[in-house]
Amino acid sequence: MLSNKKKYIVNGNSGIKAQIQFADQKQEFNKRPTKIGRRSLSRSISQSSTDSYSSAASYTDSSDDETSPRDKQQKNSKGSSDFCVKNIKQAEFGRREIEIAEQEMPALMALRKRAQGEKPLAGAKIVGCTHITAQTAVLMETLGALGAQCRWAACNIYSTLNEVAAALAESGFPVFAWKGESEDDFWWCIDRCVNVEGWQPNMILDDGGDLTHWIYKKYPNMFKKIKGIVEESVTGVHRLYQLSKAGKLCVPAMNVNDSVTKQKFDNLYCCRESILDGLKRTTDMMFGGKQVVVCGYGEVGKGCCAALKAMGSIVYVTEIDPICALQACMDGFRLVKLNEVIRQVDIVITCTGNKNVVTREHLDRMKNSCIVCNMGHSNTEIDVASLRTPELTWERVRSQVDHVIWPDGKRIVLLAEGRLLNLSCSTVPTFVLSITATTQALALIELYNAPEGRYKQDVYLLPKKMDEYVASLHLPTFDAHLTELTDEQAKYLGLNKNGPFKPNYYRY
Amino acid sequence: MLSNKKKYIVNGNSGIKAQIQFADQKQEFNKRPTKIGRRSLSRSISQSSTDSYSSAASYTDSSDDETSPRDKQQKNSKGSSDFCVKNIKQAEFGRREIEIAEQEMPALMALRKRAQGEKPLAGAKIVGCTHITAQTAVLMETLGALGAQCRWAACNIYSTLNEVAAALAESGFPVFAWKGESEDDFWWCIDRCVNVEGWQPNMILDDGGDLTHWIYKKYPNMFKKIKGIVEESVTGVHRLYQLSKAGKLCVPAMNVNDSVTKQKFDNLYCCRESILDGLKRTTDMMFGGKQVVVCGYGEVGKGCCAALKAMGSIVYVTEIDPICALQACMDGFRLVKLNEVIRQVDIVITCTGNKNVVTREHLDRMKNSCIVCNMGHSNTEIDVASLRTPELTWERVRSQVDHVIWPDGKRIVLLAEGRLLNLSCSTVPTFVLSITATTQALALIELYNAPEGRYKQDVYLLPKKMDEYVASLHLPTFDAHLTELTDEQAKYLGLNKNGPFKPNYYRY
Amino acid sequence: MLSNKKKYIVNGNSGIKAQIQFADQKQEFNKRPTKIGRRSLSRSISQSSTDSYSSAASYTDSSDDETSPRDKQQKNSKGSSDFCVKNIKQAEFGRREIEIAEQEMPALMALRKRAQGEKPLAGAKIVGCTHITAQTAVLMETLGALGAQCRWAACNIYSTLNEVAAALAESGFPVFAWKGESEDDFWWCIDRCVNVEGWQPNMILDDGGDLTHWIYKKYPNMFKKIKGIVEESVTGVHRLYQLSKAGKLCVPAMNVNDSVTKQKFDNLYCCRESILDGLKRTTDMMFGGKQVVVCGYGEVGKGCCAALKAMGSIVYVTEIDPICALQACMDGFRLVKLNEVIRQVDIVITCTGNKNVVTREHLDRMKNSCIVCNMGHSNTEIDVASLRTPELTWERVRSQVDHVIWPDGKRIVLLAEGRLLNLSCSTVPTFVLSITATTQALALIELYNAPEGRYKQDVYLLPKKMDEYVASLHLPTFDAHLTELTDEQAKYLGLNKNGPFKPNYYRY
Amino acid sequence: MLSNKKKYIVNGNSGIKAQIQFADQKQEFNKRPTKIGRRSLSRSISQSSTDSYSSAASYTDSSDDETSPRDKQQKNSKGSSDFCVKNIKQAEFGRREIEIAEQEMPALMALRKRAQGEKPLAGAKIVGCTHITAQTAVLMETLGALGAQCRWAACNIYSTLNEVAAALAESGFPVFAWKGESEDDFWWCIDRCVNVEGWQPNMILDDGGDLTHWIYKKYPNMFKKIKGIVEESVTGVHRLYQLSKAGKLCVPAMNVNDSVTKQKFDNLYCCRESILDGLKRTTDMMFGGKQVVVCGYGEVGKGCCAALKAMGSIVYVTEIDPICALQACMDGFRLVKLNEVIRQVDIVITCTGNKNVVTREHLDRMKNSCIVCNMGHSNTEIDVASLRTPELTWERVRSQVDHVIWPDGKRIVLLAEGRLLNLSCSTVPTFVLSITATTQALALIELYNAPEGRYKQDVYLLPKKMDEYVASLHLPTFDAHLTELTDEQAKYLGLNKNGPFKPNYYRY
Repeated sequence: MLSNKKKYIVNGNSGIKAQIQFADQKQEFNKRPTKIGRRSLSRSISQSSTDSYSSAASYTDSSDDETSPRDKQQKNSKGSSDFCVKNIKQAEFGRREIEIAEQEMPALMALRKRAQGEKPLAGAKIVGCTHITAQTAVLMETLGALGAQCRWAACNIYSTLNEVAAALAESGFPVFAWKGESEDDFWWCIDRCVNVEGWQPNMILDDGGDLTHWIYKKYPNMFKKIKGIVEESVTGVHRLYQLSKAGKLCVPAMNVNDSVTKQKFDNLYCCRESILDGLKRTTDMMFGGKQVVVCGYGEVGKGCCAALKAMGSIVYVTEIDPICALQACMDGFRLVKLNEVIRQVDIVITCTGNKNVVTREHLDRMKNSCIVCNMGHSNTEIDVASLRTPELTWERVRSQVDHVIWPDGKRIVLLAEGRLLNLSCSTVPTFVLSITATTQALALIELYNAPEGRYKQDVYLLPKKMDEYVASLHLPTFDAHLTELTDEQAKYLGLNKNGPFKPNYYRY
Repeated sequence: MLSNKKKYIVNGNSGIKAQIQFADQKQEFNKRPTKIGRRSLSRSISQSSTDSYSSAASYTDSSDDETSPRDKQQKNSKGSSDFCVKNIKQAEFGRREIEIAEQEMPALMALRKRAQGEKPLAGAKIVGCTHITAQTAVLMETLGALGAQCRWAACNIYSTLNEVAAALAESGFPVFAWKGESEDDFWWCIDRCVNVEGWQPNMILDDGGDLTHWIYKKYPNMFKKIKGIVEESVTGVHRLYQLSKAGKLCVPAMNVNDSVTKQKFDNLYCCRESILDGLKRTTDMMFGGKQVVVCGYGEVGKGCCAALKAMGSIVYVTEIDPICALQACMDGFRLVKLNEVIRQVDIVITCTGNKNVVTREHLDRMKNSCIVCNMGHSNTEIDVASLRTPELTWERVRSQVDHVIWPDGKRIVLLAEGRLLNLSCSTVPTFVLSITATTQALALIELYNAPEGRYKQDVYLLPKKMDEYVASLHLPTFDAHLTELTDEQAKYLGLNKNGPFKPNYYRY
Repeated sequence: MLSNKKKYIVNGNSGIKAQIQFADQKQEFNKRPTKIGRRSLSRSISQSSTDSYSSAASYTDSSDDETSPRDKQQKNSKGSSDFCVKNIKQAEFGRREIEIAEQEMPALMALRKRAQGEKPLAGAKIVGCTHITAQTAVLMETLGALGAQCRWAACNIYSTLNEVAAALAESGFPVFAWKGESEDDFWWCIDRCVNVEGWQPNMILDDGGDLTHWIYKKYPNMFKKIKGIVEESVTGVHRLYQLSKAGKLCVPAMNVNDSVTKQKFDNLYCCRESILDGLKRTTDMMFGGKQVVVCGYGEVGKGCCAALKAMGSIVYVTEIDPICALQACMDGFRLVKLNEVIRQVDIVITCTGNKNVVTREHLDRMKNSCIVCNMGHSNTEIDVASLRTPELTWERVRSQVDHVIWPDGKRIVLLAEGRLLNLSCSTVPTFVLSITATTQALALIELYNAPEGRYKQDVYLLPKKMDEYVASLHLPTFDAHLTELTDEQAKYLGLNKNGPFKPNYYRY
Repeated sequence: MLSNKKKYIVNGNSGIKAQIQFADQKQEFNKRPTKIGRRSLSRSISQSSTDSYSSAASYTDSSDDETSPRDKQQKNSKGSSDFCVKNIKQAEFGRREIEIAEQEMPALMALRKRAQGEKPLAGAKIVGCTHITAQTAVLMETLGALGAQCRWAACNIYSTLNEVAAALAESGFPVFAWKGESEDDFWWCIDRCVNVEGWQPNMILDDGGDLTHWIYKKYPNMFKKIKGIVEESVTGVHRLYQLSKAGKLCVPAMNVNDSVTKQKFDNLYCCRESILDGLKRTTDMMFGGKQVVVCGYGEVGKGCCAALKAMGSIVYVTEIDPICALQACMDGFRLVKLNEVIRQVDIVITCTGNKNVVTREHLDRMKNSCIVCNMGHSNTEIDVASLRTPELTWERVRSQVDHVIWPDGKRIVLLAEGRLLNLSCSTVPTFVLSITATTQALALIELYNAPEGRYKQDVYLLPKKMDEYVASLHLPTFDAHLTELTDEQAKYLGLNKNGPFKPNYYRY
């Protein structure tokens, strides 16, 4: 069952998907999934941290309202009560947030416009389970504009923006989500999306696999009408591959996690910026002249290294994969074992997808004031547990910043308790979310409109042409002008003028 | 027939291999292949230009000797005359060159050492057809050290270093090659390698496909004993895929052109350096502040852009592929159509693999002193032919540098007549050649030792594990220290501790 | 009168000090200085913004206490009441902050250690007026350790950290300062430092010139015993040069604002980091692919440009000085007039020290969502006043972030209302403050110990050897190892082995 | 005596001018100066190396003509024989070279145009002694166009381009210079410039001080009519300062060596490119991943470090000056002592202006194949002499490349025998020469037109406004558009709208 919430992103030393054997998977098998903090592992869905939310200073404070939304009677202005949100009255504020997000998601807006005539999702009944933020709202309303009916729940008990949920409910979307759901609330909300008189979903948009899991478990017959699943997260995709392998996947599924645009943008380009942002917001440190070791030279590590080198840090890299290692060399980084530099570095950053990359022994040898953080995985990369021993003192000096103090007075600065720095301590630019949301929308359109037989009961990557289309929708943001092949050139290259332009194995 | 010598490298706007339809292929079908200049298209094998050879100042001059090697009677010091080189007496000088190359090819030397005991190529009879340079000599002698018998011809009528050929002949290798072969000499040399009493090859190492072609045509029965072909060039690989598609490939073949290490190193890292080198050696220009447009943002384009940006140039990019285009944007380059900037740029560089990217119309609009060159393809990228019209004056101002002068006095600076700048006007570092040669050696070992049935009559990529091994053999050059997975970590990731570490589709 | 609070830092288009004629100076002459916000103009003294202070999350909240400190009776644990702070009970928390700062100010700590024996400030009676932060506290306690007696007031009515002031008072420093002083409080505090029975200062450490002004005005006779003034701010230094010019400067003064280390670090290196930090914290924008125009290519502009280019932005520069303009060209930036790019850029950053660099006309032509901010000067660089017209709507979307909305819906994003972005919206690394504080300490030592006649009644720059000493004290932070000249080399170069190593006009 | 030809450029660890005491100066006092190779030390004047000249492949070969020019009877087409060059018939080829250079020296061409009316040098009689290259010819003809009469000799016995000299002679310039002069020829040529019936110079343009020296020695009375000296080289400037100090300078002199544009361009920007060029042309090495130590972090070192870092090298820096050292740290370089890294680095580059920075002991400890070269000084920086011992074998492998081989087989690769790499092994872009030549022209104009009394018998720097003017003349090359101050802004800043824009001590 879906109790395994491990993230195994493709970067750094790891990057192994299908063949991963989760050692600790079985023992967790029958445990109830814990919603708390769990989703924060998934970079893709970008749970913005508390910090980042709170930075939107004028957000209305609803903390005074203690009644559970499930116990409230609320109606939107059109009289509908087919939703469950914290407070429908916050709709106006949420609407403004959505409007601001729309300005930064031109690709989805373009999609709305282009599809004004034909409605490629006419007849689609989409049940969704994602973070509920202004950006998701733009996606949801785009799906609506393309002809779909949607019902929506949150994939994380903490990440819902109540005002946005209210705005969606006000404009007629059956949304069941609020910030601070209980475990029970979580599943109740999902159930309310699915289990409804006279309406049955024919498409699933999932982020983490919980919605898919619920339907498998409670309403397996629903799959007869379902045309496909679009899954966003590494966790959910992994689960789908397992189902497929076991012959239990009963509809086509689209893995949008591994599309080029998503991988390169979420990992390389986004981390290039968020490593700086995360370190600055938590420590106010100066990068110039600092010695840094980055563990793992996958896309995430490459982004971190490039940014820190550009800011004047001296960067060392550790790797297990000789090819990535050789890239690090050619890019100008000393390739070392962690032990060789652990005494001298000012910052340790993990980006491996592995576990126990930074051990207690390493931590013991770090110099005073060394900063330790993780960009790659859940809190397994740094053996944080090993620091919870009586001889060490923990001092919380800021939100997300702990000083762990050794008996001799040495202190290391641990960020976000070893969880993902960029999700905990920085924000994710709307532009990156836009790429993901556009990919999701296109995957839904593709699956929904695919002729019988194009997709079997298996997990698919988005066709390259769609990847290219997502990219092309984002070019106007940069006032970027694409060159078109002439007929003669297309013939010479043996290409269709509209793409796809590269073979599947092209590495970019 | 192998008369199609087009290069269709994977970079820039192109990168399409299997599906390429060569429009002009058929008409050339029955033409005799022209050796001259042809191979200079192949980046991979790095035909060093005349310039670069001549930079090795102390090379002995053998121009005075007009006798054809085919008419000479020569013996090496052991009395053997099973070779045909320009002048066996140049052996000593060639030996020194080989020794210098050995110092920069530690991976092959390591291979020799590791295989001292077992001789993985014992019994192998390799016939080879490659450029004959000091670096190839190190490869050849490594194959010998691993147990193989070798016979060798040149794949290009111009690229043979006579001294190196002499040194190989002196140490007992049957080498048939000299600089300045005629077309007839070329095939005669190949034939002398293959058509020999009492010796029949069981492995082929080819670079361009001519040797393979010759055996197909003249000695098809030889394939019964041949265990496999290792092909290095894009041209040759393309031909093998065609044979395979047509069901005519009768032995397994290994495509070493598309290995990661080769692609990233030959294209990205090598071009990052050679664009600067090529421009400096030909024009002595200053890069700072210059406006440059780079056509194509594949690996080659990425390398060129990175280098020029780092040197203070202002770089514009053109692309047809929206994904590469978006990468260009994120990397900080304005994405434009060539027309938008053609009047203002100081340098135009093509890296597309396409044809007529720079047209006469573009050339007409360039400003005075604009430099035009090609990093990506044969001279089709720039429409050089369109410049050979009566109203334009050509002035050769230096080797590889032409001023083309318009009636109004405007002159553009055309480098290498639109042929590959980095091959014509810069040199290829031994380190890059080392990666290629090591990959070739490993491919030979793999094919030769593979258990029956592992490889069918098809074209294969080198197993990822071998790619990783090639990379690992080059790490000591950088004093780079790889981290090893612990048992626990390997289990956690579901990986073998010795690799492979990434799925096949990993993009690096 | 010191009513002129204009900042005229040396960077960007400006950089003119002595010869500046303040057009609007006279009319302000008799106005009372307004303390509010005023000091935030001074980069050098690094008034951390409200944001950054609040980021130290656990700071005790004293907002409930409404009594004026002037009306309170407080004693420290030793029974002294010669101080006036918000709440002496906050001392412990403040002490921890000081201790943390000590870890990042190794140069001052080294100074303490080196001077343990001799006490170079023995007998010094220093009256100081600076921001009161943990870093200043480390300076103050260092002065104490070197033998000095100190009395201290705040140079800004908002910037005092009450807990730090309490800690200083508790450890015996007569400190008169709290956060949120009134104008009257401000001068009262300064007076309490100076006007004290049985103690008369012989050194002044000033930041802004208010303390100096007060003594000039109220206690001119005090100057008879005063050995010198050390002034930190541009404003104060300007005032001193005016006094000197007018023949009214009656003691030597040291201008620490223009030392190399301070200029290059505060401006170039610090801004390289803070431009990114300030933009991220306020807007969460992605830098990659954004078009930015930076007005002014002085040290500040150079830092901003380097950082944004490294993050993948496309950067344009405007300049008035042809030399700086040529540098921008060679560094790879298109040099334009603002008008040429104003319609297309995503971000406008001013770093000129000039006024009305961005006019209403420019603002009218910017595209929707353009971000406008200032790194160089008070809010005169951007003509913010011109935006306060009825047809434009201002929307405060976050702290320090306003959307200014045109009638047609276009909105521009104005940061910090045009005040200094890096002071308002990012933090200043302790390392930079350490350089400044160390320079101040050395200037005090130099003036205090200088033999009679070395310094006249004039304004001096710190001797180059002291600049070099400040730098050398900060090298251990980077584990940096300086090379020493051999005797032979020193002789060859005609240098003293201990420096100074460069002529005064050396540009670094 | 001017026998001291040491160069003591302002960069790296050195940069000390006025106060330099040359230990070995006195002993050389009475030696005859040796012309050979000597000037190659002067970066400023950019003696292009043999390599670079020969790269202009079509240069006519005059080596067959053994007659000394002094013994030839030559006339130009107008019948004049007031010149002495190798072969007047080469004029046409030289003219083409000059025309090409004109295209890249737009500043001088602009100067010609602007001064078409007024002739600011009308009446000037300039005697010059510089390298005679196409670029100098453009300068000379510009001086002519501005109204001056010129007579010219070469400042180096090897650097004259015979064809250019012929072209100048043909167009009426009395030029006395050829490639391969003897020592005696050298002084004879200078004398022929000065010692002429009915013509007496009133301005001197010197590069190295030999011309000035000759007049001092032979024709001291000439100084009565001379309005000033413009000196280009470090050597010559040093000599002038010495004369001034000794009270023996009898006319004003202009030091054009230390102007900002020249310093920053010649050193920082030019070396950023030439270090790569010099290394590539000599060794064909790959920069990526190489470990490099750069000795000295002045402008030259900064340029080298920036370039190599950008190409993927790992760079270490050594410094003696703590301020430059701190800059290296902030720019992301490990600051080390040479001993710490000497065993591990692949390349050692000296840029100090010091002597014996790399000692025999260092050379003994370098690893096999380490490359050693000098960017900063004459061959004193590397103790090359210490390598000329019997146990070491020298092998010349290419022009400018020696392998020095230790008894155990270790070889180090010594470039240009320790002389300046960028002059010996790369070329100097015309753009840089253009800046220098323009500065020289403006200095001549300034001195010639200065009102009585503005300049005394002392050495002056070019007024900042002229520096700014030189820069502004080069901006059109980059299509760069300068912003102009409004009246209001100029008033606010207290600046003249036309500059100068910065105080003299501004560091850029």
